[in-house]
Amino acid sequence: MRIALLGGTGSMGEGLALRWAKKHDVIVGSREVQKGMKAAEEYLAKAKAFYGDSMRGTIRGTSNLEAVTQADVIVLTIPHEHAASTIINIKDRLRPSQIVVSPVVPMVKVDRGAVYSPITEGGRIMSYAEALAKELKDVPVVAAYHTVPAKRLANLSLVLNYDVPIAGDDKEAVEMAMRLTRDIDNLRPVYVGPLRAALMIEALTPLLINAAMYSNIKDASIVFVQ
Amino acid sequence: MRIALLGGTGSMGEGLALRWAKKHDVIVGSREVQKGMKAAEEYLAKAKAFYGDSMRGTIRGTSNLEAVTQADVIVLTIPHEHAASTIINIKDRLRPSQIVVSPVVPMVKVDRGAVYSPITEGGRIMSYAEALAKELKDVPVVAAYHTVPAKRLANLSLVLNYDVPIAGDDKEAVEMAMRLTRDIDNLRPVYVGPLRAALMIEALTPLLINAAMYSNIKDASIVFVQ
Repeated sequence: MRIALLGGTGSMGEGLALRWAKKHDVIVGSREVQKGMKAAEEYLAKAKAFYGDSMRGTIRGTSNLEAVTQADVIVLTIPHEHAASTIINIKDRLRPSQIVVSPVVPMVKVDRGAVYSPITEGGRIMSYAEALAKELKDVPVVAAYHTVPAKRLANLSLVLNYDVPIAGDDKEAVEMAMRLTRDIDNLRPVYVGPLRAALMIEALTPLLINAAMYSNIKDASIVFVQ
Repeated sequence: MRIALLGGTGSMGEGLALRWAKKHDVIVGSREVQKGMKAAEEYLAKAKAFYGDSMRGTIRGTSNLEAVTQADVIVLTIPHEHAASTIINIKDRLRPSQIVVSPVVPMVKVDRGAVYSPITEGGRIMSYAEALAKELKDVPVVAAYHTVPAKRLANLSLVLNYDVPIAGDDKEAVEMAMRLTRDIDNLRPVYVGPLRAALMIEALTPLLINAAMYSNIKDASIVFVQ
């Protein structure tokens, strides 16, 4: 699978690149080609050192636009503040055969912690993922990876024993995101319904930030327990 | 501690009554006195059978209004649809020395699953707990127990190994809710910040409903994992 990580030079991008490179071809996108290439080079060295001969994938860097053109799956590893400008930039290149994965969370930083700040449109409240899907029309959007702590993801020696809630309307796109999630050892995808369920998944990120801030549970994720 | 469970004849009320009766005086409130008394009688028999001589608390039933008058802590074990009428009914009886605990979640049932539907007021989105606190003015409100599965809570033989996110502005009220949470074996209170954080806690309930619906993870709760 060719996976583009847009704005992939941050720690979320690094984590997904390192984890997926074991098996997949990862394309690190950046607003600047040189920055993307430099990050990809660093990630590749780390991945090779860790996986050795068992590594089947690759990591290379380029612009966000070029990354989109070359990928099957596009992951928005960008903060919400930069999401709109990135989407405007790449929108016309997207094809209905591709899949866009959104871990993006609209939230407001407060004096201590964060508050979820969903999109409002004509009195209706919706998740970022739903707003994105409306904008992208026929390109399927899947909400995933909001709860995976970026720093731990980027540390290949750590086992990530987490549940990953996933929402989406397109069956094949959801199945692809579930498969890619299972390709990261010990992550368990949990399908929680159509894209409207992304509202509840996105809210988890500020909850985890607050748990870190107020109860010192740092870089945590969640597990569903019966 | 005297704890009133308003609308305590449902399974959430039963669960909290059974668990807290080991140590506390539980007052089961209902819109109808007789219904409250009958439920309390049943719960008391179950609690006595389970705890035997180690039981220190009591369970009795009365009207919601009478329960409020007699209690130190008032827990709203009512669905969101009935919350407004219950609050109107009891509002004038509440005292600033009391604590109101809200596990209430405004949500919309959809064809399959549920969607979080927070309160909107002049373009601002807020949790039910925040809206309640505004209405109750000087009575402290704590958000808690949104994620504790009622059926498992009501089964005393089950160990509930869950994290319970708690939000609130009033330090003493929060500490009381944390203590009451620890009084239920194996439940771990996790303070996640001021009442504005209730927005993210309330969203967990429809998330859990959807996880049950779409991934067969029934009556589940959450654990924060590092």
